[in-house]
Amino acid sequence: MSEHSPFDSTLRPASGAAWRVRWFHIIFGHEDAAGRLFDVILIVAILASIAVAVFDTVAQAHILYGSIFYALEWFFTLAFTVEYVMRITVVDRPWRYMRSFFGIVDILAVLPTWISLVAAGSQYLLVVRALRILRIFRILKLTRYVGEADLLWFTLVRARRKVLIFFSTILTLVLIFGALMYLIEGPEDGFTSIPTSMYWAIVTMTTVGFGDITPKTTLGKLLTSLIILIGYSIIAVPTGIFTAELAAGMRAKRKRVSCTHCGQADHEGDARHCRICGTALPSKND
Amino acid sequence: MSEHSPFDSTLRPASGAAWRVRWFHIIFGHEDAAGRLFDVILIVAILASIAVAVFDTVAQAHILYGSIFYALEWFFTLAFTVEYVMRITVVDRPWRYMRSFFGIVDILAVLPTWISLVAAGSQYLLVVRALRILRIFRILKLTRYVGEADLLWFTLVRARRKVLIFFSTILTLVLIFGALMYLIEGPEDGFTSIPTSMYWAIVTMTTVGFGDITPKTTLGKLLTSLIILIGYSIIAVPTGIFTAELAAGMRAKRKRVSCTHCGQADHEGDARHCRICGTALPSKND
Amino acid sequence: MSEHSPFDSTLRPASGAAWRVRWFHIIFGHEDAAGRLFDVILIVAILASIAVAVFDTVAQAHILYGSIFYALEWFFTLAFTVEYVMRITVVDRPWRYMRSFFGIVDILAVLPTWISLVAAGSQYLLVVRALRILRIFRILKLTRYVGEADLLWFTLVRARRKVLIFFSTILTLVLIFGALMYLIEGPEDGFTSIPTSMYWAIVTMTTVGFGDITPKTTLGKLLTSLIILIGYSIIAVPTGIFTAELAAGMRAKRKRVSCTHCGQADHEGDARHCRICGTALPSKND
Amino acid sequence: MSEHSPFDSTLRPASGAAWRVRWFHIIFGHEDAAGRLFDVILIVAILASIAVAVFDTVAQAHILYGSIFYALEWFFTLAFTVEYVMRITVVDRPWRYMRSFFGIVDILAVLPTWISLVAAGSQYLLVVRALRILRIFRILKLTRYVGEADLLWFTLVRARRKVLIFFSTILTLVLIFGALMYLIEGPEDGFTSIPTSMYWAIVTMTTVGFGDITPKTTLGKLLTSLIILIGYSIIAVPTGIFTAELAAGMRAKRKRVSCTHCGQADHEGDARHCRICGTALPSKND
Repeated sequence: MSEHSPFDSTLRPASGAAWRVRWFHIIFGHEDAAGRLFDVILIVAILASIAVAVFDTVAQAHILYGSIFYALEWFFTLAFTVEYVMRITVVDRPWRYMRSFFGIVDILAVLPTWISLVAAGSQYLLVVRALRILRIFRILKLTRYVGEADLLWFTLVRARRKVLIFFSTILTLVLIFGALMYLIEGPEDGFTSIPTSMYWAIVTMTTVGFGDITPKTTLGKLLTSLIILIGYSIIAVPTGIFTAELAAGMRAKRKRVSCTHCGQADHEGDARHCRICGTALPSKND
Repeated sequence: MSEHSPFDSTLRPASGAAWRVRWFHIIFGHEDAAGRLFDVILIVAILASIAVAVFDTVAQAHILYGSIFYALEWFFTLAFTVEYVMRITVVDRPWRYMRSFFGIVDILAVLPTWISLVAAGSQYLLVVRALRILRIFRILKLTRYVGEADLLWFTLVRARRKVLIFFSTILTLVLIFGALMYLIEGPEDGFTSIPTSMYWAIVTMTTVGFGDITPKTTLGKLLTSLIILIGYSIIAVPTGIFTAELAAGMRAKRKRVSCTHCGQADHEGDARHCRICGTALPSKND
Repeated sequence: MSEHSPFDSTLRPASGAAWRVRWFHIIFGHEDAAGRLFDVILIVAILASIAVAVFDTVAQAHILYGSIFYALEWFFTLAFTVEYVMRITVVDRPWRYMRSFFGIVDILAVLPTWISLVAAGSQYLLVVRALRILRIFRILKLTRYVGEADLLWFTLVRARRKVLIFFSTILTLVLIFGALMYLIEGPEDGFTSIPTSMYWAIVTMTTVGFGDITPKTTLGKLLTSLIILIGYSIIAVPTGIFTAELAAGMRAKRKRVSCTHCGQADHEGDARHCRICGTALPSKND
Repeated sequence: MSEHSPFDSTLRPASGAAWRVRWFHIIFGHEDAAGRLFDVILIVAILASIAVAVFDTVAQAHILYGSIFYALEWFFTLAFTVEYVMRITVVDRPWRYMRSFFGIVDILAVLPTWISLVAAGSQYLLVVRALRILRIFRILKLTRYVGEADLLWFTLVRARRKVLIFFSTILTLVLIFGALMYLIEGPEDGFTSIPTSMYWAIVTMTTVGFGDITPKTTLGKLLTSLIILIGYSIIAVPTGIFTAELAAGMRAKRKRVSCTHCGQADHEGDARHCRICGTALPSKND
């Protein structure tokens, strides 16, 4: 199966020196007490560093605690840099880790602060640090959440073609309705261009309805009513797709056992004979 | 099973004096005429006391009927205080009741008014009284609503891990999109800080769309369209989770036992014979 | 079964004079050509009379065509009055028809105009005429829509307890959150009273989000985010309830045949033996 | 089956000259390398021509690149005209193609620009060109998307009666609530006529909530709360209909034939033996 959950990647421990193997299990592992303690500290540090970056943008907080935030920012950057260097040191194939999803996120989480020493403004890129929070799923994976996350993920994967067809339809409707509203209402009512009208059409069809642009003419209101009713109907489609796939996924406890006669390996959960050739299936315990 | 419905708690009647047993059945019971009459009076009193607290905040009503509202407020507080004292008196283990969910709600419903005698402003805490309305579920439980409420409750309990994963994803997206919009639009367009941007992202992704803050730049409108479409897709997820779990819960009342003659394994919950071949079904305990 | 679809009511033709039987079939029947022609004319007249009442409220249209609208209004009122008198005349038990749902709607559709002769302003009650449009379902019922409408109706009936529990929960949350927002934001930000706050809470939790009242304080925005996320989650509940019930309704093609031995009359569609006593079921053709 | 997917239409190649057969496969076919290359070029050209029409409406872009857009517009119009002529030339029955859905779209995509030579303003009709994008589904059809698109399409077709009943109910409610709000709020609060009130009712019931018109009176806010809660409940209906139908569609691929030995009647679509007892299943034609 080529499609696999992004939460799943195996890295081999560094061979050689015992301290490297030890630290590999602490940093990358989640099994023993030390590994779990590291995980908890890491998650807390990630959340705290994000909180600092977020609250530093609040004007009053920046005036009052700006220098504390600045110090904390550098403390977390140094800590994450040390962590990144450690990860490269203890893993068996550093290059493979560095190119992995979490490897790239880990370096992007510290780069902006370092770059801000030479180029002003780059600290805004700290937003990337938010992606580190995804590590929390990695750790949760080891608990009882693994099956649930995989079920949701594979449901989305199975539904991807239906979702693609659905989005193509939505975007075509947005284009057609956006262009029509531009013709009907015109720039004086806020529909200044077709791209702006398309933005309005998306906001309207999805029932967000900011109200920053609204139809003023009678014909515009009539078309808007039609657009809304169509949007209201198709809100059913992604929900329906996901639900039907999820229900199918929850029901489909299939029996994975090869038929001794014809080799068919995919059977219903309660099957006792192969549905293709009729041979009695071996029980799982055999 | 450690997870149980919050609507479910058993309290034993006070032993000893006959009047205590009698009043226990009136106050805590819902079986005989006296118990049901008490329930109806209690619900009406709760609703009336909430109505008084609610309409007292309407400026015109406060001017016209303020003194009547004040008198009613004390009448209900005294009545509920007497009721609370009675509950402690007649129950076998008062401490257990006092620490139960409804025990805490019952005392919180009268405390604010009493405290307002010594400290001004505490009457605003009367909001807590609204929680007493949950008693209505307790009473409905005795009727045919019990199975339905339990089904909804256990569906939510079973879906809790999927819901947790879903909310973690939402909050991560809110953080990332909120920070991006803060960078793109900036304070002059209402995105005054990342927390404000995150509030806007929640309002937008959930299709609420107040319109108090809206994107003004072209890039901001483009990103908003993307955020909305993502939000529109993931609205499918909680719906799908709940529906699939509910459908599974409704289906779970079937009897899963193989017929000894024909092997049919899927029977209705009350089946005693196989509906295909008529053979008596083995009981589950066999 | 005491619960039955409101679209379903049988009226017996008037006995006696042949012209009464004939007109009964024209007015109440939908089988022959004359009956169907009457149906079409009636629906067109209802739609036209509603259109007149609706467009008469548009200021420009009223100035231009006010007198034409007035004449048409009286034409339709006279026609519907004649129709009502005819219905009473030809039906066997006039009193039963007059008290039925459509009997009451039919009289309410003409009364306002007649009353307007003696009391000004009553023409606004013509809104009731909109209810006559429900007749369209009555007529469609005779075609292939009957099964579909009944399926939707009975799904709602079966789900009514779950829906009641759901609405009680919503209203409790609206009360609690409305009161909290009133305390946090206060009258100066538009939350002028608890009833107004509750209106805002409904508008927000259901993701309508007009934006006429919005939180201004940081704490208010935080609580609003929480309210929205809760509302977003519970939007799943009515959808899930309805879908699961509908899916169950569509699947449950039950076999309605009494067991000759034990009398059990409700079996699964593919049952050949009674699931209670194992007796072979009679085939439907017997 | 009279209902068939609109993505499905077979056109026969022109007989006779070899170059016509060759070009038929290039233009209408999607099997060989040349046909697929033509498809890719066509889709890119359609997307580019739509982008030109869309961005030409942005004021700044029009000032800067107006002449380039004008030249590109004519380039695409000429190319699509040549393509249309080619399609007519190489197909066996040109008239049948010209009256087909894509035939009409193809001519509508070039006509506005040609008409703009004689009549100003017609270039606004270029919006029609957006419909050409639907060709993308035609091409995707040849890949693994065919089954998915057909499943979604037939689900909508099967659900059409339920959807019609649902929309009739919505429009009746919109009429009644729109008229009531017009009576309660009146023109001074923005509810200037019943049609405007109906537009507001649609915007509100579907949870769009622009906020351009909002209730000001207490009674209006109360009715609005009721309207919203009703709208919130019935949002479940189209979702439920679609999901239930889709789930049924996904399930319908099963083989419904009773096993002659054990009577098991529910088998997978490709089963040839009963999975319970191994007996060969009778073919459906028996």
